[in-house]
Amino acid sequence: MKLWLTTITAALSLQLHASELKLDNNLAYQLTESLTVEVGQRLAGSDADRRAVAWAEQKFQQLGYDKVWREPFTMQYWQRGQASLSVSAPFHQQLVVTALGGSIATPFDGINSQVVMFDSLEQLKQADAAQVKDKIVFINKSMAKDKLGTFYGSVVGARAQGAVEAAKLGAKAIIIRSVGTSINRFAHTGIMRYSEEVPRIPAAAISVPDAIQLEKMLSRQPELTLHLQMDNKLPGEVESHNVIAEITGSKYPDEIVLISAHLDSWDEGTGALDDGAGVGIVMATGALLKQQGRPERTVRVVLFGNEEGGLVGARAYAAKHAAKLKQHVFASESDFGAGRIWRLDTGFGPNSLPFGQTLQQQLAHLDISLGDNSATGGPDVSILKAQGVPVVTLQQDGTDYFDYHHTPNDTLDKVDPAAMQQNLAAWLITTKAVANSRIDLRQ
Amino acid sequence: MKLWLTTITAALSLQLHASELKLDNNLAYQLTESLTVEVGQRLAGSDADRRAVAWAEQKFQQLGYDKVWREPFTMQYWQRGQASLSVSAPFHQQLVVTALGGSIATPFDGINSQVVMFDSLEQLKQADAAQVKDKIVFINKSMAKDKLGTFYGSVVGARAQGAVEAAKLGAKAIIIRSVGTSINRFAHTGIMRYSEEVPRIPAAAISVPDAIQLEKMLSRQPELTLHLQMDNKLPGEVESHNVIAEITGSKYPDEIVLISAHLDSWDEGTGALDDGAGVGIVMATGALLKQQGRPERTVRVVLFGNEEGGLVGARAYAAKHAAKLKQHVFASESDFGAGRIWRLDTGFGPNSLPFGQTLQQQLAHLDISLGDNSATGGPDVSILKAQGVPVVTLQQDGTDYFDYHHTPNDTLDKVDPAAMQQNLAAWLITTKAVANSRIDLRQ
Repeated sequence: MKLWLTTITAALSLQLHASELKLDNNLAYQLTESLTVEVGQRLAGSDADRRAVAWAEQKFQQLGYDKVWREPFTMQYWQRGQASLSVSAPFHQQLVVTALGGSIATPFDGINSQVVMFDSLEQLKQADAAQVKDKIVFINKSMAKDKLGTFYGSVVGARAQGAVEAAKLGAKAIIIRSVGTSINRFAHTGIMRYSEEVPRIPAAAISVPDAIQLEKMLSRQPELTLHLQMDNKLPGEVESHNVIAEITGSKYPDEIVLISAHLDSWDEGTGALDDGAGVGIVMATGALLKQQGRPERTVRVVLFGNEEGGLVGARAYAAKHAAKLKQHVFASESDFGAGRIWRLDTGFGPNSLPFGQTLQQQLAHLDISLGDNSATGGPDVSILKAQGVPVVTLQQDGTDYFDYHHTPNDTLDKVDPAAMQQNLAAWLITTKAVANSRIDLRQ
Repeated sequence: MKLWLTTITAALSLQLHASELKLDNNLAYQLTESLTVEVGQRLAGSDADRRAVAWAEQKFQQLGYDKVWREPFTMQYWQRGQASLSVSAPFHQQLVVTALGGSIATPFDGINSQVVMFDSLEQLKQADAAQVKDKIVFINKSMAKDKLGTFYGSVVGARAQGAVEAAKLGAKAIIIRSVGTSINRFAHTGIMRYSEEVPRIPAAAISVPDAIQLEKMLSRQPELTLHLQMDNKLPGEVESHNVIAEITGSKYPDEIVLISAHLDSWDEGTGALDDGAGVGIVMATGALLKQQGRPERTVRVVLFGNEEGGLVGARAYAAKHAAKLKQHVFASESDFGAGRIWRLDTGFGPNSLPFGQTLQQQLAHLDISLGDNSATGGPDVSILKAQGVPVVTLQQDGTDYFDYHHTPNDTLDKVDPAAMQQNLAAWLITTKAVANSRIDLRQ
């Protein structure tokens, strides 16, 4: 394995030589910049994903981690093609569209059908087949903003399950209003699902301005025809990787304090907020912890692969390490952009709540308050929490997160270096506190 | 001509029947909505341009204008194709790019060349040919924001003249940082020019985030290769039209008070701000003036064609009406988006300055102050001003205008109906004051 790593490293030397890293409080930002500038998008299963894996291994080594390795898993690879959507009659206009992740292609000549609009997935579910059959379904549900991203959950169902519900009623395709909070003309991609029970139909999202436009067209002319063309490919099973690195504990090397982010991203932006920022934060945390004096417990940094496809890397990690999950004394993930952390939520055993209070006191100077004890720990880490691993969520301000999330507009210029420093400080304090304590957070 | 108009109208009936207009203070917004929803983009010379011309004629008639006609002119038609730009080595990434209007295509396989960055057009002009030869030039000049759009002028030169200056030094192509003030990932198109003296090279713009990204890549690796591919077409000469309508003056029908906007737009947005808003404002002004009692002088509304290609319709208008420009007692254009009007600038003879002061007093309740006497009247109207026609500029707040201008993000949702009402009120007051006065503003 060592030789093979060396080969990869040599191949990437051109990419990597130029970005020297400084072990200072700007390290998280430096790493996010390096990842997004030198690798860019890194759709799970793609060549760019492989470059990201090699980048991560090399950076961990440069940062002085004690152990660096990758763990393979298999996944279904989905490849974006061209996508176009136009109003073919009576108003001839091109709309901004993106294929949803996992969607099949349309026939080569596209689908030309009348459109039928619903306000929500729930309204679609109650429709008659006669309303929907042979049409393109349009779900036009808007999303409101808040710090926690609360409203994502109530809107994203149309993306995930819309194709199945539309197909049940005989639709030829489905388009949804983007799951996002911006009026900028970007369409929001993200994973969607099929069912074995009903035919697979193409699924896409249009930008918020285009949804508003389409609604206005329909109010003028309910019999509107759309033409959708997409040539996504589903090449089948490929290998991807979780990338893992450790700072070995000085006293209790078998007790694992796991901090994480996900390395993959959607392919239209450079994945700076989702989740380049998280990658930078947790990679920097381990490196600076070692610099500050080796912690007593082992700090393991996991960069999960293929989070976007449905926590695929996290499930592989949990399966591979099932026997050793009891040695995972703590887990947390940074995966909600690059906003400042404003709240500490815990997922501890009842006897450990005072530890959460002590921890919050250490974070108070960063304007971080104490939330409740129902933290998930983050999307990937929720898989570990389900196996009993104690977690925290260092809750970031996500007010603007869904302005950029899963769009071409998720780029480095949206990341505030000062907010990244605040995140890094909070992760250092939290990780160090757990890694240098003897507490059993399961209790 | 009448029969022919009827035919056009019949063909468009499906498009037009549904949008009933109310002659109220929301009329400007209603018209902008109708144009952008029912026609959308209307690139000069395109089929959509012809639909826009027919739309305008029909709307003028619906609004009760006394005369409605179109005046043809010829123009060079430029047709956008696909455009793609990627970093081919060492960082494999796709950048967001748009062809500049008028640019030739690349060879079918594109251009694969090293890039050389300049901070400005001025810096490029001072470069040695050895630095530039066979490369892709990248001009990376940013644009600052203000109410007047002051900084546009100092940045747009790279777009207009960059290809000529780069070609003089042997460049293969030119890309510029978008002339815009937003960090959203949209590229800004707009007209560019060639010279007979040097070879024509392809010209394109990348979004601001992509310019930042490219600069960061170059700081890591100065020897960066780009691959640019575009297949724009230049089909040659076609016909387009100015659309003109009048409210005939009750006492002095030969004295023309000209108010205007431009009907064409760039093709990637729906041209809501540029210049759908202006179209709505001036069409509504004439209709409401007639409703309020026919003015004494004739109010002529001109919707110029092909402003974006270089004031082509305005030049045709000035040429055709050269003998009658003396009867044009006033001209003004609305073409700076949909922000509130905050200042009245005049371009009057010295004896007419008191009229400007009186007019401002009538506008004061709309928070409009008096500027200076160096108004251009607007892009198209500047051609008439050069022939001695008195003008005003009702100066709009353009702080956010260049966030959207010439990008796919110029859509109706960016237009504030309340600000449109304020614009309409100011145009009504101004036009009525001039049309019901006997003043000779040339004096």
